[in-house]
Amino acid sequence: MKRFLTLLSLVAICSIAYAQQNIFAGRTQIVSPQINPDNTVTFRYRAPKARTVQVTGDFLPTQKTQTARGVSESAGVANLVQNEDGIWEFTSEPLASELYTYTFIIDGMTGLIDPNNAYVQRDVQNQFPYFIVPGGQGDYYLNQNVPHGTLSKVWYHSNMLNMDKRISVYTPAEYNNPKNKNKRYPVLYLLHGMGGDEESWLSTGRAVQIIDNLVAQGKAEPMIVVIPNGNTMHQSAPGESGEGMYQPYSAHSMDGTYEPTFGEIIKFIDSQYRTIAKKSSRAIAGLSMGGFHSCYISMNYPTSFDYVGLFSSAFTNADQCGADAYNNKIEKLTAQFNAKPKLYFIAIGKTDFLYTANQNYLKQLDENGFAGKYEYFESEGGHIWRNWRLYLTMFAQRLFK
Amino acid sequence: MKRFLTLLSLVAICSIAYAQQNIFAGRTQIVSPQINPDNTVTFRYRAPKARTVQVTGDFLPTQKTQTARGVSESAGVANLVQNEDGIWEFTSEPLASELYTYTFIIDGMTGLIDPNNAYVQRDVQNQFPYFIVPGGQGDYYLNQNVPHGTLSKVWYHSNMLNMDKRISVYTPAEYNNPKNKNKRYPVLYLLHGMGGDEESWLSTGRAVQIIDNLVAQGKAEPMIVVIPNGNTMHQSAPGESGEGMYQPYSAHSMDGTYEPTFGEIIKFIDSQYRTIAKKSSRAIAGLSMGGFHSCYISMNYPTSFDYVGLFSSAFTNADQCGADAYNNKIEKLTAQFNAKPKLYFIAIGKTDFLYTANQNYLKQLDENGFAGKYEYFESEGGHIWRNWRLYLTMFAQRLFK
Repeated sequence: MKRFLTLLSLVAICSIAYAQQNIFAGRTQIVSPQINPDNTVTFRYRAPKARTVQVTGDFLPTQKTQTARGVSESAGVANLVQNEDGIWEFTSEPLASELYTYTFIIDGMTGLIDPNNAYVQRDVQNQFPYFIVPGGQGDYYLNQNVPHGTLSKVWYHSNMLNMDKRISVYTPAEYNNPKNKNKRYPVLYLLHGMGGDEESWLSTGRAVQIIDNLVAQGKAEPMIVVIPNGNTMHQSAPGESGEGMYQPYSAHSMDGTYEPTFGEIIKFIDSQYRTIAKKSSRAIAGLSMGGFHSCYISMNYPTSFDYVGLFSSAFTNADQCGADAYNNKIEKLTAQFNAKPKLYFIAIGKTDFLYTANQNYLKQLDENGFAGKYEYFESEGGHIWRNWRLYLTMFAQRLFK
Repeated sequence: MKRFLTLLSLVAICSIAYAQQNIFAGRTQIVSPQINPDNTVTFRYRAPKARTVQVTGDFLPTQKTQTARGVSESAGVANLVQNEDGIWEFTSEPLASELYTYTFIIDGMTGLIDPNNAYVQRDVQNQFPYFIVPGGQGDYYLNQNVPHGTLSKVWYHSNMLNMDKRISVYTPAEYNNPKNKNKRYPVLYLLHGMGGDEESWLSTGRAVQIIDNLVAQGKAEPMIVVIPNGNTMHQSAPGESGEGMYQPYSAHSMDGTYEPTFGEIIKFIDSQYRTIAKKSSRAIAGLSMGGFHSCYISMNYPTSFDYVGLFSSAFTNADQCGADAYNNKIEKLTAQFNAKPKLYFIAIGKTDFLYTANQNYLKQLDENGFAGKYEYFESEGGHIWRNWRLYLTMFAQRLFK
């Protein structure tokens, strides 16, 4: 603190005033969102001429609607009220500690970000401002004063897909310490959902923060985390490769093309990093399409992973397209469970539209003699990142012990 | 292409339809921005109830205003026109190949991003949608079908600042190839401006794309690029460390606190990467505050850098605060030029508000016997990223040859 004050006084002495010409266009800063001491959150928007200003996001109770496919959940909407300065304002109820996203709706225009909040996440094609209420689960998602791992965006060549592919790799803080130069580490492969890519678990998923914090607290083992791109038609996240700056969309790779390529990824990681290249030090987990992929990859490589996490898995008819990766499911599962994985973890939200599909998978496991060989966890809510961050936090603490 | 069609048909067979519940809220996609074959660009915004919709950005001719400090430039503004579907539209003049940013202004609300463009850059506290017009300089800023380097976010400990600090490190595509495992590489240290951080040269600066493309074309040597965080009061970009999710602002570190710590950065990089740790294989360059830093760092380490790039440098009264790093300037410059740097490159835009300050620095160099020992380049425009990307493209081609 003393040092900080010394710096401040130096700055005052050396004071200058200028700005990059294309930026500070005279907009007065207002505080939004403001996390209040009682964990209510105040949103503000300067829109003097607007007729209606609303905020929507996962911090509001969901609205439930009955549809042909069952009960559908959507984010709630709250009205901001204009004060005498033309600034619209809304204060939420006290919120549980969590990461929340929100957007504004002004005069019917949806998806507006908050000009006073620099923290924005892309989820598929849309930008979402976000904030974190501390004091509980949300603390895992904040960068804390702890040692931080290294995050790299690396390229490997897939011979099977005949393309270079981009992959995110996290190594724990201690990995670069010269005293650990001969130490090897276990690996968690973490797979994204439909519309996602090798960035998703980093932005909306907060995987780096979760692992940094769990490791610093001694709750998780130092591990390498590998986040591949599970879209076989793309090299990378949108705009990061020679495919051009197309707009993101939700194509999927649940067609048997991805699972056979996973051996290439493991081989690449084992060749480039100080991994412990064996089953007891390898985990695979994913959300939605990534849960589906983790399920089929782990059964197709039955002796490769001792830890499997299926988060809100997209068990759909996608596995009926006759691809090799999806055939002989029961035989493959039998081989996998015979190899005694240490943890086979299935999690789903109670109102997830894939809830029934996941119950059917549990039933299939039970009917084929695998009852008691997996763990099942059910949370509130639907097919949302809040659940996937929670599942990762739980799953990571169980690994490599 | 054949393979792509095969994949497509597989997808059709295995077709499924679902979405993450918090995303696709029924908004119909429109195309914006649309880069037309004649390099005009069409912007669209769906705002049925809006009274005025405008677009502003660096793709429009700047507006010049006379102020007490001279002629001030600001971005132009264009009006969109509403069509019968309630969609507002504007088509620009044909644009030169370049990366451009823009925002919308609707009913007086400024800084609105484009909900149909997933490509957004943060510049200090604001988000800017962007697009790239190909066919010339802009091609350096696009990811092309070329080998891609690795980009890492790494942490080192600064003893002098008594904090962990985050640093971006790019290694060229060939670095990870096992056949190069004993090859060592030159290093370019690339410094950001006021309000910037270790992300700025990556997002708005397109440094990875520029170096990837120049190396692939044989126009630049494969090199390591190191982008430190030049703010001595912060560990990292906002939100990336335990300092909390504060809103970015333009504090500066032109107070003599940063320059003395640069030896720690060089030492860390030389210890972690296969560098050629000598003057002839070391370059330093920066924009604005980073140009100021590059100037003083290179003169304080007169035998460390053979290549110096001062881009739109913030030569201000900041160097009059009595810090050791800023004292004995002429003696230090004499030592630096006596060590015969291979390139001392100064660049500035003709309408940059720092133009006069840079002319004064040139004059100071000339008056002290350094005429002919530097190169000077003048471009159109002001204190803007377009210039800094251009200067990096020019500078990188001159290095390590």
